[in-house]
Amino acid sequence: MFLSELISMKKALNLIKNYSKSLRTENISLETAFSRVLAADIKSMHDSPPFDRSAMDGYAIKAEDTFGYSETNPADLIIIDQIGAGEESSVEINNSEAVKIATGAPIPKGANAVVMEEYTRCKGDKLEVAATLTPGENVSFKGEDIKKGEIVLKKGRILRPQDLGIIASAGYAEVEVFKKPVVTVITTGNELVKPTYDLQMAQIINSNHYTLKSLVESTLATPKMVHCGDDQKLISNKIKKAINTSDAVITTGGTAISKGDVVVDAVNDLGQVIVHGVTIRPGKPFGFGVINETPVFMLSGYPVAAMVQYDVFVRSFILKMQNISWKPQKVKKIAAKKIPSTLGRTDFIRAKTENKLVHPIMTKGSGVIRSMVDSNSYIFIEENVEGINQGAECEVILYDSFKV
Amino acid sequence: MFLSELISMKKALNLIKNYSKSLRTENISLETAFSRVLAADIKSMHDSPPFDRSAMDGYAIKAEDTFGYSETNPADLIIIDQIGAGEESSVEINNSEAVKIATGAPIPKGANAVVMEEYTRCKGDKLEVAATLTPGENVSFKGEDIKKGEIVLKKGRILRPQDLGIIASAGYAEVEVFKKPVVTVITTGNELVKPTYDLQMAQIINSNHYTLKSLVESTLATPKMVHCGDDQKLISNKIKKAINTSDAVITTGGTAISKGDVVVDAVNDLGQVIVHGVTIRPGKPFGFGVINETPVFMLSGYPVAAMVQYDVFVRSFILKMQNISWKPQKVKKIAAKKIPSTLGRTDFIRAKTENKLVHPIMTKGSGVIRSMVDSNSYIFIEENVEGINQGAECEVILYDSFKV
Repeated sequence: MFLSELISMKKALNLIKNYSKSLRTENISLETAFSRVLAADIKSMHDSPPFDRSAMDGYAIKAEDTFGYSETNPADLIIIDQIGAGEESSVEINNSEAVKIATGAPIPKGANAVVMEEYTRCKGDKLEVAATLTPGENVSFKGEDIKKGEIVLKKGRILRPQDLGIIASAGYAEVEVFKKPVVTVITTGNELVKPTYDLQMAQIINSNHYTLKSLVESTLATPKMVHCGDDQKLISNKIKKAINTSDAVITTGGTAISKGDVVVDAVNDLGQVIVHGVTIRPGKPFGFGVINETPVFMLSGYPVAAMVQYDVFVRSFILKMQNISWKPQKVKKIAAKKIPSTLGRTDFIRAKTENKLVHPIMTKGSGVIRSMVDSNSYIFIEENVEGINQGAECEVILYDSFKV
Repeated sequence: MFLSELISMKKALNLIKNYSKSLRTENISLETAFSRVLAADIKSMHDSPPFDRSAMDGYAIKAEDTFGYSETNPADLIIIDQIGAGEESSVEINNSEAVKIATGAPIPKGANAVVMEEYTRCKGDKLEVAATLTPGENVSFKGEDIKKGEIVLKKGRILRPQDLGIIASAGYAEVEVFKKPVVTVITTGNELVKPTYDLQMAQIINSNHYTLKSLVESTLATPKMVHCGDDQKLISNKIKKAINTSDAVITTGGTAISKGDVVVDAVNDLGQVIVHGVTIRPGKPFGFGVINETPVFMLSGYPVAAMVQYDVFVRSFILKMQNISWKPQKVKKIAAKKIPSTLGRTDFIRAKTENKLVHPIMTKGSGVIRSMVDSNSYIFIEENVEGINQGAECEVILYDSFKV
C-alpha cells in the first residue's frame, strides 16, 4: 500500500482554525437585519416604556376607589376625560374619578391603576367598576422593560424577530452587523455540464454547482459560482482571481491524492497547502490551503463527499468569520442496524433518525447523492471506534442542527 | 364581570383552518430554489450515473488479474491507455492490461474494477497493483444512484442543498415551486413612531414594524409593510388596498375587546369577522376575519402578544399556503420554578430552556419585549391545567423549532 500521509479530522480542524479571521462590519438598515449577526452591543437610548402607560383599553383610576367592590357590588365613579393612544391628558384624577384610556396612552396624574373595559359598564359619564384593583394593575411603568443606558443585546447574536424589536425600542433604525463573507466556489471537471435532457456520453451533470451554492447560502454567506475545466493554468487563473475578490474560496474536484492533482498543485504554486488527505469517510481527499491569507477549501468532486467535507470543515469556519460560534450538536440515538467502521477513520454515515432510533443508509461509494436526499442526519463514528452493534447507542448529528 | 365571548385556542384554530388555501406555483431557476417548496414531483430524465464510471482516480483493470496479490506480492500489469474525466477510451482491456482512469470517467470495455492510485506503483507503462480487488470495486454502475423515470423527490419538500443536487442530476435547470405568499402587515396606532433618539411624550417606537416584517420572512413569505393611524376610514382604506394586493393581511393594534375597536370594526364592515377574542395568554384580543376570501389576522399592538399570536395562529397558516405542514414541536422539560396558570386559558410562558430544565421568565403584562429576547422557548400550559409545580414535567416549544 503506497498511501499518502493522511491526518486525523481533529488535527485537520486544528490546523484550519489557525487561519480563521472575523470579517469587518457594516451598518445596515434594521429593516434588512433579520438573521444577520450583531457586531456591537446595543445600549438603549430610552426607558421603555418611556412613561407610565396603560397596558389595557379601560379606565385610569385610583385603585383605592375599588377596594372591596366586586361583580355583584360594583364601585361607582365619574368619567372626567379620555386619552387616546399618542395623546396626553392634563387633568388630574381625584377620588371617585376615572379617565377613559387607550392601551399605550400615558397614565394621567393621580391615577395608579387601569380597570379593563370588560370589567366596567358605562352610562353617560357614570362608570360601574365590577372588580377590586390593586395599585399598579394594568400599568406598565416607565423603564420596566428596558432602562435607558442598559445593554439590551450583546454582539455576536444572530438577530431574531424579537431582537429587531428590542433594537428598534432602544432607538436604532440602523444596526452594525458582520459583513457576509463572499465565498467563490470553483467547480472543476471537463466532464461536468449543466442540467439537460440531452446528455452526451462521458458527461456528468454538475450537481455540485447547485448544492455548494446553497450550502454557502445556508451558512449566511454570499456565493459566487465559477466553473472551470481540468486545465491547471486555467484553474490557477480562476483561483488567483477568486482570491482577490473573495473572503474564502471553495473548489470541488481535482483533489484525489495523486501526483497529477490539478487543484492542489495550483494552490501549492500560488500559496501553501496546509492539509491534504484526512482520515474521514466519505471525504478523505479533502484539502485546505492558504493564498495571501485567503483560505481555500479543496473539496471532492463527489457530491456526498463534498457535502460532508463542507459540513465538517467549511461550515463552522464561514460562520466563525461572522462571529458565530457553531458546533455540530450530537445527540444519542439507538442504532437500528449494525454499522461497520474501521479503526483510525472518522465515519459520517448518512442515516434516517426517527424518534430514538437511527437507521443507517448503507451505500457504496461517495457518489450516491440519493443517500443525502433520503437521510436527515449523520451517524458520527469516532476514529477509535470500530463499529456499532445493532441496539447500541451512537452519536448522531441532525441536519436540522445546521440551520442557523 | 362583563366579558365579551371568548373562544378556546383549539376552536379558533379550527375556524381559521377552513379558510386556508394553497397558492399557485411558479417555475424558477434551480439556482434560486434553496429553501423554496417543491410543487411537483421530480422524475429523473437520466440514469445516474449515466454510464459505468470510475469512483476513484486509479487504473481500470480486470479484478481477476489481482486475485491473490497483496502489498508484499503485487500483481504486474501493462498500462495501455488513459481516460480523463469527460473522455472516452476506445480500447478494450484484456488480461494483465490496465487503463489509467480519472474519477468520473467511463470504465473501458473489458474492465470490471478500478484500483485506487494509492495501491499502485507505476514505472513507464508497467503497473504494480498491491491489492486484491473484487469485481465492481470502485465502479459506480449506470443507474445505481437514480434510475431514469424514477421519482427522486416528492412535492411539498422544502428544498435543501442536496435536494437541489438531485434535481440537477435528474436533468432540470428549472423547478416548479409554490409562490411565496405576499403578506401585507398594517401596524396601527397614533402613538407609534420610527426608532429615534428624540422621543416626544406619549410616543412609542413601532417595534412591531421590525418584528412582524421578520416574522413574515421567517415563514418564507414576502412582507409588505404599511403604517396607519387610528382612524377607522384610513384603516379601512389601507385594508381594502392590502386585500387586493396580498395573499394575507396582518394588522397590529386596535383589537382590544371593546366597542370602539377600529380594526375589527373595519374588517367587519368590509367582510366577516370569524374570531375575536381567544382564551390564551398573552394574546387574548386576537381576531381573524375574511374579506373577499383573503384572510386577515388581527394581532395585538403589544409586541409580545403579537408574537405569540403570530406563532399560534399565523405561522402554520402562511406555511400551509406554501404546502408546508408545520406544527409546533412540543418537548418535555422539568419546570425549575412553580408556574401559576388559570383553568380555561392556554398559556404561553416565555422561558429559557437549558438541557432538561426550563426556567419560566415571570413578567407582568404583555408589553415586555425583553422576555421574548431573553427566552428561547415557550412553556405551553393547556387550558385544562391549573399550573405546574416546581420539578414537574411540562411541555415546551423551542423557538428553534420555528426554523423551516
